[in-house]
Amino acid sequence: MIKVTLIGSGNVAQHLLSAFNKSTAVELVQVFSRRNESVSHLIPVEKITTDLDSLAEADVYIIAVLDDAIATVASRLPFKNRLVVHTSGSASMQSLNDNNRKGVFYPLQTFTKGKEVDFKTIPICIESQFNDDYNVLKKVADTISDKVFTINSEQRRSLHVSAVFVNNFVNHLYSIGNAICDDRQVPFEILQPLIRETADKILTLTPNEAQTGPAKRNDRTTIESHLDFLSDENHKNIYKLLTQSIQDNGKKL
Amino acid sequence: MIKVTLIGSGNVAQHLLSAFNKSTAVELVQVFSRRNESVSHLIPVEKITTDLDSLAEADVYIIAVLDDAIATVASRLPFKNRLVVHTSGSASMQSLNDNNRKGVFYPLQTFTKGKEVDFKTIPICIESQFNDDYNVLKKVADTISDKVFTINSEQRRSLHVSAVFVNNFVNHLYSIGNAICDDRQVPFEILQPLIRETADKILTLTPNEAQTGPAKRNDRTTIESHLDFLSDENHKNIYKLLTQSIQDNGKKL
Repeated sequence: MIKVTLIGSGNVAQHLLSAFNKSTAVELVQVFSRRNESVSHLIPVEKITTDLDSLAEADVYIIAVLDDAIATVASRLPFKNRLVVHTSGSASMQSLNDNNRKGVFYPLQTFTKGKEVDFKTIPICIESQFNDDYNVLKKVADTISDKVFTINSEQRRSLHVSAVFVNNFVNHLYSIGNAICDDRQVPFEILQPLIRETADKILTLTPNEAQTGPAKRNDRTTIESHLDFLSDENHKNIYKLLTQSIQDNGKKL
Repeated sequence: MIKVTLIGSGNVAQHLLSAFNKSTAVELVQVFSRRNESVSHLIPVEKITTDLDSLAEADVYIIAVLDDAIATVASRLPFKNRLVVHTSGSASMQSLNDNNRKGVFYPLQTFTKGKEVDFKTIPICIESQFNDDYNVLKKVADTISDKVFTINSEQRRSLHVSAVFVNNFVNHLYSIGNAICDDRQVPFEILQPLIRETADKILTLTPNEAQTGPAKRNDRTTIESHLDFLSDENHKNIYKLLTQSIQDNGKKL
């Protein structure tokens, strides 16, 4: 059994905790939480500590806290030369303290509090300063996910920026679609099967292959009529910029 | 049995044809196709005509052709006072010829040639000039789909513009995400579970509730680091505009 200690009690920490609870290869030794209550429904209270100085010995310490707090937490750990990893998509491995051996254990998914996820399908991107530690992280990752990738800090940054486009920005386009429907009392649910199919399509086609619509086929009449229809200046600007981008992209292919 | 004649042999026509073939409430009387071959795998060849003048009698004529061709096809129909509908999201009902009773039968989905779809889950938006015809269209729609909506031409236009945002533009953001990954040899498939979850999330939350990310929480450090990371000017501009739009939208809520 690999002994794991989890530092943090937020969204990611709680989802990891649930996943480790089900694993037969990982022993969850301890969870550090500033407030006992936030994880007491997931782990026996004697395994929770609110004091970094009383952390028990473990094979891996997983810091799952907000990006801004990683360096501070890492610098306060009261031991040396142990394996300490963070779970962030955007923080570099170097943001960890030099006192310990560094690594990253980044589950790439959008976690919603209280919504159960199937961890088996969640990609985990791992990175480590030393080869031996890589094997430990790989074992821990393999026990909760079927999709483990070796990703260095630079690549992880690409993934994180890319995730902003395909998650945050995509969701914002859903918001705009919703607002346009609301304007004319059209139920937004009519668009849900289309939204689902748009996401599913790129399981079998590349996004470039899957591209359709007036921008792609340079249908000026429809584009003009849509711009004419949109009353919100911001929606118009987004429509124009993305239409232009689809057309420029088409020329490059 | 309601007698239906299909005019057209493209993507939408073929998917409708397959759906009607399975229906016990609709009798597919005839298909008009300029080229026999395109639908001969879906219907007995004696039911295919290449001549508008030899169209047999039916309860509904469904014109499933490109938007630009709807008016021309409708004006060439050799009969009067029958129910003629088109399947377009953007053409108004009025683009049909006054010789016949008008209607719209718009299945809202992105159809890929050769990829089977479950029509039961595809919303069909119907509209008609006369009440009696509405009932006929409703029966035809109900026999192939569980999601039939009454949508007028103005509302249908909202849906069509909204669909450009949630389908065409969303897919383009997938393309950008893919390009960013390719740049650093990161497999884009790592992002697929996130893409899927982003789409699934809004089955239970509104898009505004589901919004996360650096723009939403006004995390300037991450936003600046992402802009710094992006080398493509166009990607930078899209990042800036959508970040601003998420922040402005947050202020309105």
